[in-house]
Amino acid sequence: MDIYKRALKLHKKYKGKLEIFPKIKVKTKDDLSLVYTPGVAGVSRAIAKNPNLARSLTIKGNSVAIVSDGSAVLGLGNIGPYAAIPVMEGKALLFKEYAGIDAFPITVATQESYEIINLIKNIVPVFSGINLEDISAPRCFEIEDALQDIGIPVFHDDQHGTAIVLLAALINASKLADKKLTDLKVVISGAGAAGTAIANLLLCVGHDKSICEPVREVIACDSVGIVNRTRPDIQNNPWKMRLAGITNRRDMSGSLADAMNHADVFIGVSKGGALKGSLIKKMNEKPIIFAMANPIPEIMPDEAMKHGAFIVGTGRSDFPNQVNNVLAFPGVFLGALQARAKIITNGMKIGAAFALAACVDKPTVDNILPSPLDKKVPKAIARVVSETYRKEKTLYGV
Amino acid sequence: MDIYKRALKLHKKYKGKLEIFPKIKVKTKDDLSLVYTPGVAGVSRAIAKNPNLARSLTIKGNSVAIVSDGSAVLGLGNIGPYAAIPVMEGKALLFKEYAGIDAFPITVATQESYEIINLIKNIVPVFSGINLEDISAPRCFEIEDALQDIGIPVFHDDQHGTAIVLLAALINASKLADKKLTDLKVVISGAGAAGTAIANLLLCVGHDKSICEPVREVIACDSVGIVNRTRPDIQNNPWKMRLAGITNRRDMSGSLADAMNHADVFIGVSKGGALKGSLIKKMNEKPIIFAMANPIPEIMPDEAMKHGAFIVGTGRSDFPNQVNNVLAFPGVFLGALQARAKIITNGMKIGAAFALAACVDKPTVDNILPSPLDKKVPKAIARVVSETYRKEKTLYGV
Repeated sequence: MDIYKRALKLHKKYKGKLEIFPKIKVKTKDDLSLVYTPGVAGVSRAIAKNPNLARSLTIKGNSVAIVSDGSAVLGLGNIGPYAAIPVMEGKALLFKEYAGIDAFPITVATQESYEIINLIKNIVPVFSGINLEDISAPRCFEIEDALQDIGIPVFHDDQHGTAIVLLAALINASKLADKKLTDLKVVISGAGAAGTAIANLLLCVGHDKSICEPVREVIACDSVGIVNRTRPDIQNNPWKMRLAGITNRRDMSGSLADAMNHADVFIGVSKGGALKGSLIKKMNEKPIIFAMANPIPEIMPDEAMKHGAFIVGTGRSDFPNQVNNVLAFPGVFLGALQARAKIITNGMKIGAAFALAACVDKPTVDNILPSPLDKKVPKAIARVVSETYRKEKTLYGV
Repeated sequence: MDIYKRALKLHKKYKGKLEIFPKIKVKTKDDLSLVYTPGVAGVSRAIAKNPNLARSLTIKGNSVAIVSDGSAVLGLGNIGPYAAIPVMEGKALLFKEYAGIDAFPITVATQESYEIINLIKNIVPVFSGINLEDISAPRCFEIEDALQDIGIPVFHDDQHGTAIVLLAALINASKLADKKLTDLKVVISGAGAAGTAIANLLLCVGHDKSICEPVREVIACDSVGIVNRTRPDIQNNPWKMRLAGITNRRDMSGSLADAMNHADVFIGVSKGGALKGSLIKKMNEKPIIFAMANPIPEIMPDEAMKHGAFIVGTGRSDFPNQVNNVLAFPGVFLGALQARAKIITNGMKIGAAFALAACVDKPTVDNILPSPLDKKVPKAIARVVSETYRKEKTLYGV
């Protein structure tokens, strides 16, 4: 039986993957009057006086909403909020399993940014974090941007989770290639949600450069070619113009093939088969390839190796170096919750990436990332994320 | 230590009362690829083809949102969405404990009806029922009314839960008094959310009279006096005008004292001390008194007995005949979920009340309702609620 049929059978058997359990058993009338009326009024009164107490007296302190409109689910596209539930439930399961966080899937019956923004603002009281998931660009940018001041962190995992794991992979890969991050020329194929977040993180946008030296040269390509400020077709796309503004410092124009000249790193977040093996030959020595399109990567690992790739990572579990978001989001949210963070800054994401990279004792070309089953990872990331938040809070007053 | 302090201590210890657990353990890479990517895509594709499958393949089939804006919490008033969380969490705990339902508290940062309506419409995909809770009148009417066609039941427990338990209590009380429901003259003190719902249920509004004979005479009183269509102060209050239209068939006017002449039943959902003992003397023989204001009832049970009451019920657990919503909502939602009901009709509520009344083998004046700890109750109610829905669905095409 193929994996899809087996998954279907498993979901039929269990009727979903989550269950909500009481922490306290109710056996007597006295129990009832402590967890519910009249006793619970004592707890409500305490929180009414000091709303911060909701974090220590209710589920709020440990809860995250996983919000999706089902517009960009896995590789399946805009399949809507019902079909998105199993993915969000899977994510919630991993939140608990890896970080002990109580996450609940909220898949919404609207794909209007302002409605999603309003909804998230209105559910803030009972959550300590919002994991946006599988929302297509440019709405994912609009929604996240609008929600940076609601008092709890909002984090689009398809963007930032991917970017963090990718940066961690790149840290170890460049070490093995004996290259410095700051000297790399990185080409990103795909200028959507993930590509934009990766560029932001590699360039340390909005982050104190004294803490982390950024990659200096990032070139983003979309289906038209190299993204640059003069391209007529992006003048009315504020998100691509912003991307053009931070990348491509030599103002190159041309095709992906042009961009690949003397590149050190190729990062694919585009579509299967987008990278021809011959382009790898144009890269600098020890080419690093991340081909993350799913289920068919931009180039298959054996094909890339044949053309001289030094290290290849993909999104798939059946090849070495799987770039899997589960390596990042549990630890990132755990750290944010521990610090009662109001936002997740680029500094926290960069910290998470370095912590994740450090989880591999001795990186090799086939082993630049920890196993997605490694339960030490979330704790290691959480420690750095919460420390960084506390530090930055002092530095910048976030 | 008083009950409020004990409850506070308990909540501090447990940091809230709910936890979200995976039903499926993830131990191997294969497990991971079944509950999450890539296997979960098989489940998503199946639901994309047929969204109804979300009920059998995801948490949706068993999940209820408990939505409150914190505007009318317990007897504490408008304490807001943070202070409301412990109450909603308590409710969710009881949903699981009594009916096996996975309920999640959503307390919202807005008290605008249209925003709450929008929010609820938008979270429909992942829930099979909405329990509105502790929302003040008239917004609770507006919100519930606007949401009757969203495809899943919306039920304001403070109204309908209270009304169901009250009707059940009245069924057994009138049996003991050897009176027929149809012959009763019922006075309701309090014309807000609960009072209106009780009037609706006793009068079987919107329900096929051939299935249940309604109480014919209900008189509602508010702080001004008897509610009737000619009162100048309610002409611009559509909800009170609607109440005036269905109650008070003799078009009486005057005070609560006038209404109490030859009444058989007094139902208080108003405030402590609202009923003077002397008024009980004006009632018909075997007066039935429900004094449900919390924590101080409209009249204390011993005082009522002294003035000739035959049966007294309150909202309190330290007196006999506690009218407690936990007797109704778990079973009502369980039945609705089992039948995949789209709405909860008055017929289902009346069925629930009769089922609840029948859970007491031999009612006595001190024992007209089952114990709130009796776990047989939700199942008995659920059976009737789901049967009634199926029957009415055929009858009316709901």
